[in-house]
Amino acid sequence: MINKLVSKIQKLNAPVVVGLDPMLGYVPEHIQKAAFDEYGETLEGAAEAIWQYNKGIVDAIHDLIPAVKPQIAMYEQFGIPGMIAFKKTVDYCKEKDLVVIGDVKRGDIGSTSAAYAVGHLGKVQVGSNTYAGFDEDFATVNPYLGTDGIKPFIDVCKENKKGIFVLVKTSNPSSGEFQDRLIDGRPLYEHVGEQVAKWGEEHMGDSYSYVGAVVGATYPEMGKVLRKVMPKSFILVPGYGAQGGTAEGLRPYFNEDGLGAIVNSSRGIIAAYKQEKYSQFGPENYADASRQATIDMIEDIASIF
Amino acid sequence: MINKLVSKIQKLNAPVVVGLDPMLGYVPEHIQKAAFDEYGETLEGAAEAIWQYNKGIVDAIHDLIPAVKPQIAMYEQFGIPGMIAFKKTVDYCKEKDLVVIGDVKRGDIGSTSAAYAVGHLGKVQVGSNTYAGFDEDFATVNPYLGTDGIKPFIDVCKENKKGIFVLVKTSNPSSGEFQDRLIDGRPLYEHVGEQVAKWGEEHMGDSYSYVGAVVGATYPEMGKVLRKVMPKSFILVPGYGAQGGTAEGLRPYFNEDGLGAIVNSSRGIIAAYKQEKYSQFGPENYADASRQATIDMIEDIASIF
Repeated sequence: MINKLVSKIQKLNAPVVVGLDPMLGYVPEHIQKAAFDEYGETLEGAAEAIWQYNKGIVDAIHDLIPAVKPQIAMYEQFGIPGMIAFKKTVDYCKEKDLVVIGDVKRGDIGSTSAAYAVGHLGKVQVGSNTYAGFDEDFATVNPYLGTDGIKPFIDVCKENKKGIFVLVKTSNPSSGEFQDRLIDGRPLYEHVGEQVAKWGEEHMGDSYSYVGAVVGATYPEMGKVLRKVMPKSFILVPGYGAQGGTAEGLRPYFNEDGLGAIVNSSRGIIAAYKQEKYSQFGPENYADASRQATIDMIEDIASIF
Repeated sequence: MINKLVSKIQKLNAPVVVGLDPMLGYVPEHIQKAAFDEYGETLEGAAEAIWQYNKGIVDAIHDLIPAVKPQIAMYEQFGIPGMIAFKKTVDYCKEKDLVVIGDVKRGDIGSTSAAYAVGHLGKVQVGSNTYAGFDEDFATVNPYLGTDGIKPFIDVCKENKKGIFVLVKTSNPSSGEFQDRLIDGRPLYEHVGEQVAKWGEEHMGDSYSYVGAVVGATYPEMGKVLRKVMPKSFILVPGYGAQGGTAEGLRPYFNEDGLGAIVNSSRGIIAAYKQEKYSQFGPENYADASRQATIDMIEDIASIF
């Protein structure tokens, strides 16, 4: 799956992933109305609205990008109907041959981490059958619990040619509260990055590891250091656009081969029609606005090479 | 909800929470068979089996204990049907007047953490209606992303009189890999504990805060220190029994008032019938074995006061 991600990035010349993080407030009025007319103002109605909204965006942009990153929290807030919309979105994106990074930020210990890994990346045994629960291609994982928490994910990934992105340095303002604290003279995120490199050696693709890292676009200096610490790990870079990360600041996240990073934009793409820049599309043509914003983002990132 | 937890603990004289972490391998043959006869060896069949298994245990022990802690990973591994079984379990335990601690270990930034908080502890707005998605009373939360990740949970908790337990020092062997590293001469977990105390001041119950901490039973020395660092925070203590934590080692987790900690046992209670000690019950009477194991655990813990 890491090989597929790399080859799609090369083919499309687009180290870009679109975050499918639908807030109900992003969904154009006409889609909300159709969903509520059918299901009422219920969790089912909300789930239908975000699913139809996603589908419109995926139909409009799937040929431009290698991957999508649905953020499960945005679905989980709508309870079971929301989880069904998440699963439908994952399945639909895979039908469209997109690599699906489940932004689930799970992490626990031993058999519990194994259960998360099985649910999102593997197959669970039921009697003599096996089933995939959510079946993303990659998942984001929280490292706070250490190797016991990560190893079960890697084991499941090995069996299924799937991968993970471990949170190393997140994009938010208070990420430094713990992540930047100095341990033996170097920040915690560097120590986590070193472990990512080590974990990654266990499960290598052709040129990159199945174990990647999350490093926010908002901290390019740290991106530069972490790029060196984890030379074989793909870096998933959130925080471009809406959160303030710029294309210029992204260069250090890439290796000399022009690979090694994939930049995420969520709101900037999926709610593009709400920006002044794309307002001429209007809510009815929100998906066309997303397509234009995707094209612009790919160009913007290409400009740094 | 923290006041309810405290008063239930006092009334029952049982600072004990039972972890509803069903592995399919724990579920007695006759329950599996009935579920598979009805739904086949499918995800629905597995979900039905763990739900019936849980129901039997809850019916047998609900009068003995203040709280349960379903581990969502064990349900999530069965995809959507598993999530439905999780929701049924939460609802059923609340019907039985148990405090429900969702062991979900979620955590993200800003609006994404808010979405998790809303989904598990709050209510989501859909048009002019509001709905609770999963509706636990407490949730466990991962602190790696810092205050931005925690604050949205606290905001939702304030509105809904709910609470969180923040991972501080986990029970697993490699928890020290990052959590024990020294920062300014003190381990990371102490710094996290200090933040828990600070976050907790924002949302106080009568005698304890709605912001608690997770500290593993396997590290009593650290429990002692952390008890002092977070005097007003309840400590949720996993790792008793199966993971090696002993009753004797639990004393430091409690305050002088005999409160301030709640000890979890999962496998030791729910799969008690598989232990030699309770084997006379047999798989048919697994729930009675769980009841006996609960009584024994409550006695064991009472012995330390």
